[in-house]
Amino acid sequence: MGEMTGEASERRVPTEARLEFRVRYVECDPMGYMHHSHYLPMFELGRTELLRLAGISYRELEERDVLFAVAKIAVNFKRPARYDDILELVTRITRQTHVRIEHAYEMFNKTTGDLLCTGESTIACINRKGEVQQIPEFLRSDVGSAPRRV
Amino acid sequence: MGEMTGEASERRVPTEARLEFRVRYVECDPMGYMHHSHYLPMFELGRTELLRLAGISYRELEERDVLFAVAKIAVNFKRPARYDDILELVTRITRQTHVRIEHAYEMFNKTTGDLLCTGESTIACINRKGEVQQIPEFLRSDVGSAPRRV
Amino acid sequence: MGEMTGEASERRVPTEARLEFRVRYVECDPMGYMHHSHYLPMFELGRTELLRLAGISYRELEERDVLFAVAKIAVNFKRPARYDDILELVTRITRQTHVRIEHAYEMFNKTTGDLLCTGESTIACINRKGEVQQIPEFLRSDVGSAPRRV
Amino acid sequence: MGEMTGEASERRVPTEARLEFRVRYVECDPMGYMHHSHYLPMFELGRTELLRLAGISYRELEERDVLFAVAKIAVNFKRPARYDDILELVTRITRQTHVRIEHAYEMFNKTTGDLLCTGESTIACINRKGEVQQIPEFLRSDVGSAPRRV
Repeated sequence: MGEMTGEASERRVPTEARLEFRVRYVECDPMGYMHHSHYLPMFELGRTELLRLAGISYRELEERDVLFAVAKIAVNFKRPARYDDILELVTRITRQTHVRIEHAYEMFNKTTGDLLCTGESTIACINRKGEVQQIPEFLRSDVGSAPRRV
Repeated sequence: MGEMTGEASERRVPTEARLEFRVRYVECDPMGYMHHSHYLPMFELGRTELLRLAGISYRELEERDVLFAVAKIAVNFKRPARYDDILELVTRITRQTHVRIEHAYEMFNKTTGDLLCTGESTIACINRKGEVQQIPEFLRSDVGSAPRRV
Repeated sequence: MGEMTGEASERRVPTEARLEFRVRYVECDPMGYMHHSHYLPMFELGRTELLRLAGISYRELEERDVLFAVAKIAVNFKRPARYDDILELVTRITRQTHVRIEHAYEMFNKTTGDLLCTGESTIACINRKGEVQQIPEFLRSDVGSAPRRV
Repeated sequence: MGEMTGEASERRVPTEARLEFRVRYVECDPMGYMHHSHYLPMFELGRTELLRLAGISYRELEERDVLFAVAKIAVNFKRPARYDDILELVTRITRQTHVRIEHAYEMFNKTTGDLLCTGESTIACINRKGEVQQIPEFLRSDVGSAPRRV
């Protein structure tokens, strides 16, 4: 974990990550569609993937008492995903302040290219007691506190 | 199911439902909090409860090819829920058109009275093929297409 | 929590608990059945209910560094549960040693009385570090280390 | 799907599949471990993977009214999995009759090589009405009805 502290300027969190999912049987409902609630854990995995691209593991962050809690989330559903579909999630950081990060999400059916849903969230940096704290310097993305670019 | 068709005017869907949950261990994450994604199925149960109060079962609706798909959902998280907490969900219909219903949600910690999160969603009436269709007359709530009252 | 320590002999854990569930939409799969994996969290709630009947909260146990990990579980599925079905779970302690408790489960469709599945599990008492430890005296059930009675 | 019917002898279902998982945050409980119920959907994905290796998609099977229901499942848990761990599941067919298939599972922590749990299941071939039916010829594995080799 020591490597996370040095040379922060060279390991800036990238602002876009792509991640694939295959829709699981257990995730589909009697309509035959993936239940809409399952997009939220996928978005979470998209955020984690952005960290991973910068060489940062969320598990290590938690061990350092740097946690993130979801403060807001919104999703617009356009088309359903079905069992065994391959999905591709694009996760972007759209805005970052000293204590919050905003992400935007686009979920595609990878085979057809169809856009299935879009989402937005705001996460807040907290400690294990649930108190808001400043995001550590090495977690700053290039987006900084720039105006939203969605 | 025959009773669902007659006397629609007397069985209007009520506009508010209350439902209790006890937070399950499997729903809590390593932070010790209920994972934020689990609110969505609870909101769904709130919508189902509203129907049930009007003597309508969602299972029967599906058998009559009247389904509802979530088109939009948004949640603001204020405080976390913990394992074994008793939650109370208040679900309200805030607007209804010929094909869509909007709901608003408030989730409370029943013991402390704290507001944990608020939410909003739009659901669209579809058939089994996924095509949008008119909401049957007997499902009309008193809210009708009145302006939003959140 | 202090009340948990005294008078253990009068608050022995009862050996049977009954708990109701309504099958949720999100728990059902494209076959229209409740996915078989969802019985496991229900069995867990059955075990918790047994504790609750003795005035013990599993949340408090965890705070006292008394945790239980599932060591073995087995389920025989006889009939499927469907969306909105009311289920009744009967949970029994069948055997208890100094470090382990064995439970048996029967899940019924409450409306029809049909037996849906039976299960068995062994849980082991551990501390937060994952080390096996003796079950506290106040958690001893009347079954004790009697031979299995399933 | 037409290709599924011809030359069955050349596309026998292989008897072993390997599949990787990264433990998701939403799958972990307040102990910090992956909740034991989440192994069951992973086992299901192992069975699906065995089919896929033979060029068969479970989604297509369902469209042909060939479904499988879990009749029995048993798991022995040896060590916990933690958030972000990479797991490797080995799924094997151990016995096959005209209507049932038995599988055995071993889940490893891929990084450490530790065996986390073992499992066994029996699935039965049914149609959409839930009636038991013969497993189609093209789904026969090389194990056939040989004595169990676990």
